[in-house]
Amino acid sequence: MDTRLPEIKPHIDRDRLYAALEGLGRIGRYVDERTGLEGVNRLALTEADGEGRRQVVAWMRALGLEVTIDRIGNVYGLRAGRESHLAPVMMGSHIDSVPTAGRFDGCLGVLGGLEIVHTLNDHRIETRRPVVVAFFTDEEGCRFGTDMLGSAVATGRLALEEAYGLTDRDGLMLVDELEKIGFKGEADARVQPPHAYLECHIEQGPILRAQGVDIGVVQGVQAISWHELTIQGKSAHAGTTPMNLRADAGVAAAKINLKLREMIASGRHGTQMRATMGAITPHPGLVNIVPGRVRATVDLRNPDDTFMRSAEAEIIAFYAQVEAEEGVTITWRQTARTEYVPFDTRVQGRIAAAADAAGLTRSDIISGAGHDAQEFARIAPTAMVFVPGEYDGISHNPREFSTPEQCANGVNVMLTVLLDLAEEA
Amino acid sequence: MDTRLPEIKPHIDRDRLYAALEGLGRIGRYVDERTGLEGVNRLALTEADGEGRRQVVAWMRALGLEVTIDRIGNVYGLRAGRESHLAPVMMGSHIDSVPTAGRFDGCLGVLGGLEIVHTLNDHRIETRRPVVVAFFTDEEGCRFGTDMLGSAVATGRLALEEAYGLTDRDGLMLVDELEKIGFKGEADARVQPPHAYLECHIEQGPILRAQGVDIGVVQGVQAISWHELTIQGKSAHAGTTPMNLRADAGVAAAKINLKLREMIASGRHGTQMRATMGAITPHPGLVNIVPGRVRATVDLRNPDDTFMRSAEAEIIAFYAQVEAEEGVTITWRQTARTEYVPFDTRVQGRIAAAADAAGLTRSDIISGAGHDAQEFARIAPTAMVFVPGEYDGISHNPREFSTPEQCANGVNVMLTVLLDLAEEA
Repeated sequence: MDTRLPEIKPHIDRDRLYAALEGLGRIGRYVDERTGLEGVNRLALTEADGEGRRQVVAWMRALGLEVTIDRIGNVYGLRAGRESHLAPVMMGSHIDSVPTAGRFDGCLGVLGGLEIVHTLNDHRIETRRPVVVAFFTDEEGCRFGTDMLGSAVATGRLALEEAYGLTDRDGLMLVDELEKIGFKGEADARVQPPHAYLECHIEQGPILRAQGVDIGVVQGVQAISWHELTIQGKSAHAGTTPMNLRADAGVAAAKINLKLREMIASGRHGTQMRATMGAITPHPGLVNIVPGRVRATVDLRNPDDTFMRSAEAEIIAFYAQVEAEEGVTITWRQTARTEYVPFDTRVQGRIAAAADAAGLTRSDIISGAGHDAQEFARIAPTAMVFVPGEYDGISHNPREFSTPEQCANGVNVMLTVLLDLAEEA
Repeated sequence: MDTRLPEIKPHIDRDRLYAALEGLGRIGRYVDERTGLEGVNRLALTEADGEGRRQVVAWMRALGLEVTIDRIGNVYGLRAGRESHLAPVMMGSHIDSVPTAGRFDGCLGVLGGLEIVHTLNDHRIETRRPVVVAFFTDEEGCRFGTDMLGSAVATGRLALEEAYGLTDRDGLMLVDELEKIGFKGEADARVQPPHAYLECHIEQGPILRAQGVDIGVVQGVQAISWHELTIQGKSAHAGTTPMNLRADAGVAAAKINLKLREMIASGRHGTQMRATMGAITPHPGLVNIVPGRVRATVDLRNPDDTFMRSAEAEIIAFYAQVEAEEGVTITWRQTARTEYVPFDTRVQGRIAAAADAAGLTRSDIISGAGHDAQEFARIAPTAMVFVPGEYDGISHNPREFSTPEQCANGVNVMLTVLLDLAEEA
């Protein structure tokens, strides 16, 4: 007869976590005009973002966390450890959103971190190292053109002054918008390297769901390259200008868009290249005027740095070809560029072990999206836990959806890994 | 010895005409950010349009014209004839503009008409029939989506109530905007058919200038077909959504844009087909989101009705092909559709004779753009005089430019034809 008491293994509260996701999702809520679905719009440093931030800060304080706001608006909630001079284990993500978002992107990592603290509190667990739950400013980059902005400043890739000076489409400056919502804090924007950095996130893709797997052990983040193009043609009367005298910036943009498609289909840049022309703004944009100028964006992704470089070279050469063919001038600037970011293999191993111990299925996966974790990978052992999403893992869309069970699985794995890492010397 | 006095042949005042064009061009003036050129923006029923209208009305009154404003905001300035019960000869055009316009489009016809009245006044010429100078509301159609709006209502193609109910992109209703600028008049919007309708206009194309010809005798207006497309795809995360799961509304729009180009090059729909995708608005229009919806426009022109119909059939069939290829849904509505409009051959003969008598060179030409004259062609003998433009006849652009001489030649021909027609029984 085994007389040992069973080991008490804490679990997070699935329904409490989900209620928090739903609660935060009501801030910035909108109803999509076509589908009737409820979406979320908490674009960085808008009033909705400010309201979301105040809600999460209130929850942090209710959990007894010591809240620090830094100069770029990153928010850190600290739970003391037994040895508070040791570097903390940090769990982080973001709560800003694209304008057409669901409730999970970023929020799962932040609210999952708070649910873990809640669970530690409920079980009166003291960790050796402090635990920090953080959310970072403007991860999405939709408004000011630079994604992972707050974590990039915190980890030293981006200078604070440079971030402050960014402007949105309306010419509003980031520093002013930060101040306006009351989140221009006093703390140094450079963060002390944590003992480890963990981030739980929805996959935002179809792979885990298709595999029927509970947990994605993220090996790294694919390379990203963003171009912002200005195509200068010649605006002219659509009814009278013969085709041979036109310099149609819209046609030039269309050629580039379809070239991206062809590059992917060719397989020349690997089988996992992705490319998108997300923004196309013709000027003047009227039915009977040949577009004289188009602003457009190109988003390239590749899990292989060599293929990314070859894809970039091909599309840049194509810009010149379109200039010659269409009589337009194409200028472009790099608005984002990251290499492939590998995550810490030891932390990945802990995640895998935690999933196995909980009886959850898992597979290795490369992140298709950028995440704050990739910034922390430069300064601390870092890894991510992915959970599957329904509907082919659609994201940046009101249909974005993961079940309470899917979310809880990921956060439970996080809890186990956190407890491991927070006891390390 | 010939003792007859030489026949006095009045001429318009070139510099006075040009000064009026420049004066009106200062209203709604802007400086193009790229080129430093001065452009004009008097989009229909904006405050700038209102200011332009008040200026022209003031000039009409200064010339002694009796001003009538109708319910759709068309303005008529009447000069009495010796037999005022006879139908007048009407000269008309428009003073509203596209947002990136020059100073000539439309304005030459209106201010040319006033200069002719000024000349008649100077020479104390009484005509048998009354003479009317008119300008019509929203010829460009840029704001409310229906071009030749005012003249279409005046001549019965468009119902007043339908025109009133049109809305712009901001949801502002035409009737309210008309009232706001003070041009919702009291007169019946249906006009009494004039004895003849004449319109002087810049060519807005390169043909006359390339031929080195002074006067274009316009034979008719090519057919026009406008489609407004809504392409519904699926917005999704640009970094994580595999290409085979995308329904990219932007790619669908690009395919349609390049298809238009291919249709023209093929010659299947004649050698004079023109086609333009002027507006492309992706939603949400952000760098890292696959466009889930695109609003776009297609503008087709052809001087041959049969070719126009075949071009329309081909592009409509292509919409269905793109739906199948891209997994999107394309809905479209016809926002403008006109057949080829032939002008009156007798009035064309008068124009040709007037040009010959003045020692001006001329050629027959088909209008590539729509004009108020095509509406009047339904109810009265109608024709147009074109004058050449510099810089390949560029129009709908601040570079739009015709010389004082080119403008004066056209208006002098108009004067001769007017004097002929106004003496007819």
